[in-house]
Amino acid sequence: MKIGVTGVASSKFGELWSVSPRALVKYVAERALAESGLEPTDIDAFYVGNMLSGILGGQENLGSLFAEEIGTTAPAFKIEGACASGGLAIHNAILGILSGQYKKVLVVGVEKMTDHKPEEVTVALMGAGSEAERIAGLTFPGLYSLIAREYMDKYKISEKELAAVAVKNHYHGSLNPNAQFQNPITIEKVLESPCVADPLKLLDCSPISDGASAVVLTAESLVSKKQNPIWITGSAAATDSLGLYNRKSLTSLAATQAAAKTAYQQAGIQPNDIDVAEVHDCFTIAELLALEDLGFYKKGTSGKAVLGGELTLNSSKKIAVNTSGGLKACGHPVGATGVKQVVEIVEQLRGNLGKRQVKNANVGLTHNVGGSGAVAVVHILSQEH
Amino acid sequence: MKIGVTGVASSKFGELWSVSPRALVKYVAERALAESGLEPTDIDAFYVGNMLSGILGGQENLGSLFAEEIGTTAPAFKIEGACASGGLAIHNAILGILSGQYKKVLVVGVEKMTDHKPEEVTVALMGAGSEAERIAGLTFPGLYSLIAREYMDKYKISEKELAAVAVKNHYHGSLNPNAQFQNPITIEKVLESPCVADPLKLLDCSPISDGASAVVLTAESLVSKKQNPIWITGSAAATDSLGLYNRKSLTSLAATQAAAKTAYQQAGIQPNDIDVAEVHDCFTIAELLALEDLGFYKKGTSGKAVLGGELTLNSSKKIAVNTSGGLKACGHPVGATGVKQVVEIVEQLRGNLGKRQVKNANVGLTHNVGGSGAVAVVHILSQEH
Repeated sequence: MKIGVTGVASSKFGELWSVSPRALVKYVAERALAESGLEPTDIDAFYVGNMLSGILGGQENLGSLFAEEIGTTAPAFKIEGACASGGLAIHNAILGILSGQYKKVLVVGVEKMTDHKPEEVTVALMGAGSEAERIAGLTFPGLYSLIAREYMDKYKISEKELAAVAVKNHYHGSLNPNAQFQNPITIEKVLESPCVADPLKLLDCSPISDGASAVVLTAESLVSKKQNPIWITGSAAATDSLGLYNRKSLTSLAATQAAAKTAYQQAGIQPNDIDVAEVHDCFTIAELLALEDLGFYKKGTSGKAVLGGELTLNSSKKIAVNTSGGLKACGHPVGATGVKQVVEIVEQLRGNLGKRQVKNANVGLTHNVGGSGAVAVVHILSQEH
Repeated sequence: MKIGVTGVASSKFGELWSVSPRALVKYVAERALAESGLEPTDIDAFYVGNMLSGILGGQENLGSLFAEEIGTTAPAFKIEGACASGGLAIHNAILGILSGQYKKVLVVGVEKMTDHKPEEVTVALMGAGSEAERIAGLTFPGLYSLIAREYMDKYKISEKELAAVAVKNHYHGSLNPNAQFQNPITIEKVLESPCVADPLKLLDCSPISDGASAVVLTAESLVSKKQNPIWITGSAAATDSLGLYNRKSLTSLAATQAAAKTAYQQAGIQPNDIDVAEVHDCFTIAELLALEDLGFYKKGTSGKAVLGGELTLNSSKKIAVNTSGGLKACGHPVGATGVKQVVEIVEQLRGNLGKRQVKNANVGLTHNVGGSGAVAVVHILSQEH
């Protein structure tokens, strides 16, 4: 698989009360297209990743809506898979190119969440959850707290290792002008923050966010050198049960493992070939699971590695993870997240990220999850053709 | 393009108050898979077409939800494009197969609408509409009444020609045991029915419906003769402005014309090669536009043709249209409609439809629209390889 990424763009993530979803989409689409040297009328398909516009805004048909806003009559599709909507939109766009039917494709992920009360957003997000869990009154912090407790008991880690994920990602966020939170934090600050769902504290949780990200994907045969392309060499998705109660294990996400296995095979690489990764840290525990399910660490060992600084930008011995700040610090506008992850890795592989540039970054990975692991999508990107 | 359709199934359409969306999906998925000789674990991708589950039910992540219900961990995606969601799900599934990444794919379209008050559904459906039209208080009957009035003025037809579409489709519905309305009606009855949005009367409008449909698509190389395949030879989509006020013409849908042009080219055929078609008759006027935009009739002439019986099953001189009963009589569970259209054409091309079998049906077409023409998707199917 060789799909050229020829343009990328992200908006600032955060509480963007004065900006409409249309304006966000237009902003990132124009910039990503400009990087590719394309006009809106040049694209031959348009994919939108979004989860909550229907539930929170009563608006659907986002493909056509944003196509009109951008100025294209290309076929347009909304792809939804909870918090993995953005990654799944990219996956489907790649299939569209590999099919031969589309050659120049725009993908936009977008979400507008902060116009609504946090309680409304929490309920809306449970639209990704299982019926039994919804009836039981569980929310996503509750679900991930069950995972965290099980993991901590099984692998004998403390809340410090979880907190270290938030500290690392806030440090990275402090170097990202688009991040929602640009304030470095300490382990003490995480441990002292209010409890949300024991053992997860406020600073273990990603925020509610607005934002949009865009990528332009181009068929290999049409990519020109001056577009400075980065290549997608693997793209795979998998599903698992919606509810935790149907899982064999709470300390692994089978969907992540399955998607990663396929993506590595497609790219012909191993986990230790990855230099930089954006993984789905909706809660700190989720990053630990991801680091292990993606094959970077053995089960139960990633917490110590994060605490020891192994995954921090440029002090990393092995791999730099969530240099954007991740969902935790960069923010988590759910439909945008999977697209933003690809934007970050493309910028890392281009090598122009300044203060948060990972040295010698040649191969990168993105990992986007929907629900509490009901769906996962993994992309592998490479500098070299 | 040669994609094998190896299994199809539809539920009854109508007011299915005692059946859940899960049960509907399981019912059609099991039957379509059984026709293909496949188990749920044999499929390698799963596409769901649905529009309103988020707005009306607060439930998203339908790919994972229904994957769990069916019993597969294959990658699963929800594709949304208003009332074209089902057709767009099939289109994306086809791209998935053409990409080479997926070989045996299940597509389900599903919608559950009658659990809600009609007023709520009307508002929810405007989730496919433009902001300006929503603010102005327009609903879809209102939008299509503007189109109907403009068409009637331009081409000097009366309400009789519109009514003839409903009469034809109710006659077809009377032969379809899955149709929501199986009662034949007369032109007088349509003209006497209550006005919804002048000139459209109650019997010019498709109903609010529940239902699900499924198709199994198989890569050409894996299709066996005993699967009795029908072939998809064209699949194309296009978009247009969301609102009517941005259109050059109200009496044509540019998205239909663009999608049809591409699909005919892919299949290497002309409109007059089509023997049987399912077109998007959400309102009677919509069928007249479709008949002309798809190239079956010259602009302004299709109303007389319908009135003269040219498109009625087996009295047709040219082409039989909406033998399922169409959206008007078979029902319009929006996310299911585009899939049901393909189910109907596959069954027609197989030649076993009994009373509503079109004689010598070799080539068929489906036409699915979202919004008031903001998106259209056209499929061409053929008996012969």
